[in-house]
Amino acid sequence: MKIITLLTDFGLRDGNVGVMKGVIWGISPDVQIVDLSHNISAQNVVEGAYILGRSAPYFPKGTIHIGVVDPGVGTQRRPIAARLGSQYFIGPDNGLVTVLMDWAINEHQPVEVYHTNDPQYWLPIISHVFHGRDIFSPVGAHLSNGVALEKLGSQITDAIHLDLPKPQKTELGWRGHVIHIDHFGNVATNIRVEHMANSGSVVVRLCGQEIPGIVRTFGERPPGELIALFGSTGNLIISVVNGDAASRIQAKPGDLVEVIKKS
Amino acid sequence: MKIITLLTDFGLRDGNVGVMKGVIWGISPDVQIVDLSHNISAQNVVEGAYILGRSAPYFPKGTIHIGVVDPGVGTQRRPIAARLGSQYFIGPDNGLVTVLMDWAINEHQPVEVYHTNDPQYWLPIISHVFHGRDIFSPVGAHLSNGVALEKLGSQITDAIHLDLPKPQKTELGWRGHVIHIDHFGNVATNIRVEHMANSGSVVVRLCGQEIPGIVRTFGERPPGELIALFGSTGNLIISVVNGDAASRIQAKPGDLVEVIKKS
Amino acid sequence: MKIITLLTDFGLRDGNVGVMKGVIWGISPDVQIVDLSHNISAQNVVEGAYILGRSAPYFPKGTIHIGVVDPGVGTQRRPIAARLGSQYFIGPDNGLVTVLMDWAINEHQPVEVYHTNDPQYWLPIISHVFHGRDIFSPVGAHLSNGVALEKLGSQITDAIHLDLPKPQKTELGWRGHVIHIDHFGNVATNIRVEHMANSGSVVVRLCGQEIPGIVRTFGERPPGELIALFGSTGNLIISVVNGDAASRIQAKPGDLVEVIKKS
Repeated sequence: MKIITLLTDFGLRDGNVGVMKGVIWGISPDVQIVDLSHNISAQNVVEGAYILGRSAPYFPKGTIHIGVVDPGVGTQRRPIAARLGSQYFIGPDNGLVTVLMDWAINEHQPVEVYHTNDPQYWLPIISHVFHGRDIFSPVGAHLSNGVALEKLGSQITDAIHLDLPKPQKTELGWRGHVIHIDHFGNVATNIRVEHMANSGSVVVRLCGQEIPGIVRTFGERPPGELIALFGSTGNLIISVVNGDAASRIQAKPGDLVEVIKKS
Repeated sequence: MKIITLLTDFGLRDGNVGVMKGVIWGISPDVQIVDLSHNISAQNVVEGAYILGRSAPYFPKGTIHIGVVDPGVGTQRRPIAARLGSQYFIGPDNGLVTVLMDWAINEHQPVEVYHTNDPQYWLPIISHVFHGRDIFSPVGAHLSNGVALEKLGSQITDAIHLDLPKPQKTELGWRGHVIHIDHFGNVATNIRVEHMANSGSVVVRLCGQEIPGIVRTFGERPPGELIALFGSTGNLIISVVNGDAASRIQAKPGDLVEVIKKS
Repeated sequence: MKIITLLTDFGLRDGNVGVMKGVIWGISPDVQIVDLSHNISAQNVVEGAYILGRSAPYFPKGTIHIGVVDPGVGTQRRPIAARLGSQYFIGPDNGLVTVLMDWAINEHQPVEVYHTNDPQYWLPIISHVFHGRDIFSPVGAHLSNGVALEKLGSQITDAIHLDLPKPQKTELGWRGHVIHIDHFGNVATNIRVEHMANSGSVVVRLCGQEIPGIVRTFGERPPGELIALFGSTGNLIISVVNGDAASRIQAKPGDLVEVIKKS
């Protein structure tokens, strides 16, 4: 069994995600399809890259991730397919693959990128506005069907890789940024659990708030309390127990976060 | 492999779509199920017909589309099943099949409609409010399982076909209407690419705006600019590059759109 | 074929539901997965229990329901797996299984509950915040793969069972409560069709409104009229024909509802 995941900013109202599945199953009837997210903020390539990169490690070898957050659709931006260790990415060459690629590189896995410019693996008619349907879905379906990655187009070495902000070590701890607000209003930052090893007691500052200490889980504090803890993929997150931290403290992606060791 | 698509106005909160899948897989365990949309506006049969009709051409032969936008559930309105060329529709006889049927007719494909009145293909108990679960899902599942369309009930020739507005040729171009606002706020009209062949330079007027020319894709204009272009299924759409045109110009389904050839 | 259903309060934006499917298919590649709902109100165990319990009867024997509405994740609350007649539940021991368990008990089906404390059926690394991914998905996948329920952990007899409000017989009829507002704004109550047998003519009172009689279906009354009828699983619901009753009468879960026999 092969798996294709889909991540887009298309929403679920207009039938476009269903159409991609129709195209995929028309070519590769036995592949399983997973919706990763179709509610990436419109044209937000960075958010898509982050969700894709943190999700992929939980999928089996051979999984093909089709990502379509694609403000440059119909322009000269290239469609690409990439081998990232044991998994694959198909989508626009606009940096959406960045976090997935960083994961493969960190794991010392092989990375190869192809410009998927062979139209025999596309639909016969290509629109200027929906390459998710016309190029990425059929290319992903053919790949899942056994067509070799190398057949899909020409290898390239200059795929776009976004320069995402990294947390900085400071004299007293770490300075990072908010990178995602989730469905519950949890505020995820780019400061990670491995940064904090042996850091002892700390305070977390963001949005004019100061949070003492890092807890292990929500249930350690009463409902309504603002807490800091490590999320399920190792990022420092700020939450309100049974509440919505982002609304409470008015946090948004890009906001500064500081972790300071207590003397 | 067979495919069943589901299109409803049920939303995704209440478990009803999942229940339809439970019923289908209980009868036809190997069929693949695609969610086309469950966010059709409540009771909006025309919107459902439009999304269904433009999506179906991308599905393989034999696909069965179950559509449930059904304000007349539990009344005398008939449940129907239709062969539309190489695909099938199951749902209420309220016009939801209209655009799908027009597509089959335009392609010179055979069209046959049956009143699915044989209760052996229904669930044993029929509620007055959820025929999506009690009639349409089991009928679709039996059809996918190999039961002949003709077995499901009595053939009819008077299925409801909506008289949807068509664009009109004018002295200087075309006059049509807004038919759909999508997730991004793109404004789709019923004026189509084939109307505009050899039309040369045009202006597009709607909602008090005048847009000069038709571009090929979003990336040809800077973010924030109001543009006209052809959408992925050939309809003229009005968009804001990386923005929300419907909110910007206050467009809604039914609004007048004019395309005028420049002298 | 086996089916796993998923019910959570995770929403569909952040990739977490997709990740659960990746984990499941990595262990049990042939299982079918149904999304029951991912829009349960945050931390609302009662709402999740209600949706799960009313949906399960429509699934085939052997279906495994993974439910994750889990404010106690990472604390001492136990993960459990239960046999409920011919179906299974996997999730937190917080009462989410209540309505499903009541259904099995009412059907005189066997009920057995296990504390799923054998980590060989978990992911290798367990976070403090996402047991849906780390424990419930792999446990459900192993169960679907043929691992016996008894192998997953130790049998227990003290699983949490919520004491949900039951409707009360009154001198003139029944008194109950609103238990759910659905996508359309229909207001579901815990008064059931079997309570009303032979009750003759009634009036329904809630939120300062008085509704004369109970109709069979929406189409019996004109659009905009406030009506009472029995929903598809037998609960008394209050609706507005082609409208949103909850907004109209400002109903919310917990509100009092009375059905009074007319003299």
